[in-house]
Formats: sequence, structure tokens, C-alpha cells
Amino acid sequence: MAEIFSTCPVPTEGKKTVSLAHGGGGRLMHDLIEKVFVANFRNPHLEEMHDGAKIEIGKSKLAFSTDSYVVKPLFFPGGDIGKLAVTGTVNDLAMCGSIPKYLSAGFIIEEGFPIEDLERIAESMKTTAKMAGVELVTGDTKVVDKGKGDGVFINTAGIGFIENSIKIGPMEVRPGDAIILNGDIGRHGMAIMAKREGLAFETTIESDCALLNEIAQAAMGAGEVHCMRDLTRGGLATSLIEIANSCRLDMHIEENSIEVEEQVHGACELLGIDPLYVANEGRFVVIAAKSDAQRILGAMQSHEIGRGSKIIGHVLESRDGMVTITSPIGATRILDMLSGEQLPRIC
Amino acid sequence: MAEIFSTCPVPTEGKKTVSLAHGGGGRLMHDLIEKVFVANFRNPHLEEMHDGAKIEIGKSKLAFSTDSYVVKPLFFPGGDIGKLAVTGTVNDLAMCGSIPKYLSAGFIIEEGFPIEDLERIAESMKTTAKMAGVELVTGDTKVVDKGKGDGVFINTAGIGFIENSIKIGPMEVRPGDAIILNGDIGRHGMAIMAKREGLAFETTIESDCALLNEIAQAAMGAGEVHCMRDLTRGGLATSLIEIANSCRLDMHIEENSIEVEEQVHGACELLGIDPLYVANEGRFVVIAAKSDAQRILGAMQSHEIGRGSKIIGHVLESRDGMVTITSPIGATRILDMLSGEQLPRIC
Repeated sequence: MAEIFSTCPVPTEGKKTVSLAHGGGGRLMHDLIEKVFVANFRNPHLEEMHDGAKIEIGKSKLAFSTDSYVVKPLFFPGGDIGKLAVTGTVNDLAMCGSIPKYLSAGFIIEEGFPIEDLERIAESMKTTAKMAGVELVTGDTKVVDKGKGDGVFINTAGIGFIENSIKIGPMEVRPGDAIILNGDIGRHGMAIMAKREGLAFETTIESDCALLNEIAQAAMGAGEVHCMRDLTRGGLATSLIEIANSCRLDMHIEENSIEVEEQVHGACELLGIDPLYVANEGRFVVIAAKSDAQRILGAMQSHEIGRGSKIIGHVLESRDGMVTITSPIGATRILDMLSGEQLPRIC
Repeated sequence: MAEIFSTCPVPTEGKKTVSLAHGGGGRLMHDLIEKVFVANFRNPHLEEMHDGAKIEIGKSKLAFSTDSYVVKPLFFPGGDIGKLAVTGTVNDLAMCGSIPKYLSAGFIIEEGFPIEDLERIAESMKTTAKMAGVELVTGDTKVVDKGKGDGVFINTAGIGFIENSIKIGPMEVRPGDAIILNGDIGRHGMAIMAKREGLAFETTIESDCALLNEIAQAAMGAGEVHCMRDLTRGGLATSLIEIANSCRLDMHIEENSIEVEEQVHGACELLGIDPLYVANEGRFVVIAAKSDAQRILGAMQSHEIGRGSKIIGHVLESRDGMVTITSPIGATRILDMLSGEQLPRIC
């Protein structure tokens, strides 16, 4: 378990090296991205720190996003790496307010990987792409020597179409906005963890892995949506902290209104993990104008993966970029970004 | 060396598995892509088997392409994985007749990788992107456990803008077209191989890794270009065979007009490798209307990385989709796709 919970860079021969924690979605990862990547590639798109870039090309406004998928195990209750690779990038495009259209896929396959499994993964990608209404139009396959990969890694990049009138992103968030969450949290991360650690519960914890493009469009159609973000690496807490940091506004949420399934709660307690920081693959927050919040909530609740939608908090007037949470017994604390990760390689 | 030259799938517990040869750019890779990926994702974009997809979104025509870079060693004479990751995708976009605009980058980093090396790679990407006039607008970082990766793998995807009037691709090739090559071949693959195998020559073999977007535009501006392709995995031979297969036209080339640097030739002889199949990263073929060939050749020769451009052959009237080559002593043979690869992990 030491490796899984490592939280600081390990010096090797006097050099700073990358640790698992650098990929965990916490502060170390943000520092690495800021120092190595944003510093070199500085441009307004990257600085917005959104789920994808909004770009203009010819006369069109597009969203462009990418993610690599390195999940272990490759097949898990509720999904597999193929479903995840399509869902994750489609969701990132949806969070930019776009209608996802086209995907690319790059496969890095370890020598010795069963072709049967590759076919299963491709079929899963096909089914998910069809459900999402996206086409996989270009791809690449590389094979690396045995012991230099881990079964298969998949990168997908995607392009979505943004209607001209749409403005969605952290910079659009306003004081007074409502924060709406579309259901219970923590299932994806704990499904992976339970399978990896061989934990047995009364019923299997299933990943919440699901497409968010339709419900996102439904929310946008029902009122003035300012920002959306899916709660992947780093979970609900990290996502809200990232948005609060970007827009320099404080946010407050109520723990009472955040649902955690009983078994997920049990697994989290057993492993000493806070569900607020656990990755989800079918959960997102909508930050919307207060006046429209009830209408948007209604639209989300009428959608299959939004039945459990609730308003969990609000954006405040103060401008420190902090997120606070009130516990069920009434104590309020500041949510901070974790240094490293709780769970690596879950998405 | 056995591993490097493996050419058939190794059965493991009765299952067919992926071998290094599946990633080598030869017939096995084509079969795998056809069977697993094209079969599942079937759409006109993939069936065209071009370097990237041509898509329409809003009112714009775009090129969309992706590649993962798994080169070993990461730093080599003439370049590094960062330069390669930008150059390769920019070149693929350029081969579609587009002006490359935006790139995404996905990093899969092995735990323990020196941050200093990561910075060197990011700097190299920055410099190359600037030279190519593209912006790196969105990215992703994943860290995998030590022993489950190989230093760093990089995926880039790119978007280019296509002028409405432009029609470039294998299906546009016509009988009588001239085949123009922009210089000597085999340097990238042999630079990697020489470094990997510790071969010492009088001077170091340098990769030809170079951006092709400007010279491609120059060629297109000088006359009627029907198809372009950069000669990466599988080299000149495989690229021509792919195009001939797609357009179902025969092609003929003259070995006399194909330049191979003396040291590259020596390294190839030593290792029993045919330079026609060795990967390049700054070489491409232009297939163009016969009547415009001289003008296009002139435009290419006046460009820095096209000084050595030559017309190396022609497209024939016959429709078998075969490529033939006449040797310096006058013997003609059919060029066939290799089964596996000569050199894995060179791009």
C-alpha cells in the first residue's frame, strides 16, 4: 500500500523524479503541470484550466480535449477501459458546453496482450461511441516490449461543436450561483479499488461510468448555466477547489446534501479514504444562475443519470477562492486540495 | 535481436496475442487495425486510410489526426521524443493538405522519471510547436507504476484547417501522375538503431526529423497535388504500397533516383535492413499531375528541406495496386509490404 499512497517525489541520484502522486489529481499534479507544461506552452487556452480548450477555426467554435486512460484493472464492474476512454473524453467535451462530434484513439499495447481482449475493448468503444453520437475517425496503434507497458493504454482526443451564443467556463461563475450535483459520489474509484484489493461486500460496487453529454445539454436548455465540470481524478472536492481557484470566488457546500452509497461509504471507511476526493466517471456539477437553479435541477432530475440531482451549495460573495463544507453535525471546515492522490490509476 | 525481429504473433495459453511486429507498420499491423479497429469503428473517414481524417464541423473543413510516440531512446541525434511528437502530428495534418493549427498532448509517465528530462522534452515541444505555428491548447498527464511504462510515452492529436477548394488523398491519384520525393531516405530509423545498438560510424547518423507543413504548402501552391504522405513507419516502400492499394493503381519507381546517405547505407548493410522500409520523420512523397510536376519539383527544391527533391517514378495505367521498382542494374521487382517490422519503436 505504500506505493499507492506515496505522496511526495522520490529523489533518485539527487534528481527529482516523477512519483505516482504526480498523477493523482492533487496539488503535486497541479504543480507539475504548472511548472513543466503550462510554463512552456503558455497560452490563454491552457491558462483557463478547463476540461478542454475552446478554439476557433474557420467560422466555427470548437471544444478540443484529450485524456489518456491507464486504468488497472482493464475490466471492472460497470465498465472497462474502452467505455472509459470514450465516456471520459465525451464528458470533457460536454463540460465545455459543446456537442461532442469526433474522437481519435491512440492505443499503446504491450507485447503479449491477448487480441481477444483488444477486440472486447474495441467493441465497448464502438457501443459507447454510438450511444454518445460521436464518430471515431482517426487512430494509431503502437506496440511496446513486454514489461514496458501494462496491457493497454488508450488515449482519446475529441472535438465538439459549440453554438456561438454559449459561454461556459470557470470565469463565468457569479456570486449567488447554485451548485448542482447529479447523484451519489465515489462509486467509480471504489469499484476499481475494491476489485484491485479483492474487497468483498454484500453486493458489488459498480462504477458510475456514464455519458454526460445529454444531461449537460438538458441542463443548458433549462436555464443559464455558467460552468460544468465532471468529477473525475480528485473527485468533487478537487473539482470545486479548481473552479474556485480559477474564478477567485468562495463556495460553500452542505455535506448533508451529498449522497454516498452505503457500500461505498463502508469501503471508504475501511481504507481510510474520503469519498469527497474519490473519482467518479458519471457525476458532474452544474454551477448556474440562482434564478434558474430550480428549473435546471428539474431538467436534470428528469434525466436517467440525474434522478438523484440536488443543489449542494452556493457560490459566495467573498473572493479568496476557497471551498468550505458544513458537516451533518454543523461544523464548517475548509476543503483543501490533497497533496498527492488517494487512488492512482483509476481513470 | 530475436525480439526486435519477431514477425509473428506468439500464442500464449492458446490465445492469440499482440507481438512487436503488430506495431511495425507492416502487413501484420494492417491486419490488426483492419480486424480489430476498422471492423468496429467502420466509417468513411477510417476507410480512406489516410494520415488523418477530413471532417466537417459547422461551416469548416478540418483535418484531425493522432499519433502516440514510444521511441526508445528518448533523446537521439537530431531530435527527441518531444520534437517527434509535435513534428509527427503536424506532418500528418500537413499531408491532408491542411494548415496545422492546434495540438493536444497526453503524457504517460513512468514513476521515477526525472523531472529534468520531462522539462527538456516540454521545451523541445514548445520550440517545435512555435516553428510549426501551432498552439498546444489542451493536455493530460498520467503516471503509471515503475515497470509499467518506459520513461515517457506521448500522444498528440492535432487539428488543421483545410481550404474549401482542396482535395488531397489517395483517391485523387491519377494515371500518369509524377511521384516526387524530398530527399535521402532512412536517416531517422538508422539514427535510432545506431544509438540503440551502440554502432559507431565516422560521423553520427542524424535523424531527418523535420516539419513538413511549409514545404507541403509550397508544393500545393505550385501546381495540382493529388496526394501526399510522410514516410514514417514502414518507410517509402510501405507508404507507396498503401497509396497504391487505396487507389488501385500501379506505381513504378527507379532506385537510381532514390538517395541513401553513405553511412545510412553502411548501417543498413551491417544490420541486413532495406532502407526502402526504414522510417523517416522529415521525408514525404508528393503525387502530382504530370503537367505540373516540374513546377512543383522546383518549389520543393527551393525549400530548405527539399533541396534534394527528385521525381522518383510515376503512376501507371494498370489497376492492380502494385508498386514496382527498377534497380540500378535494370532488374525490375515488385515491392511488397513486410510482414512485421524491421525496427520497432523508432517513432
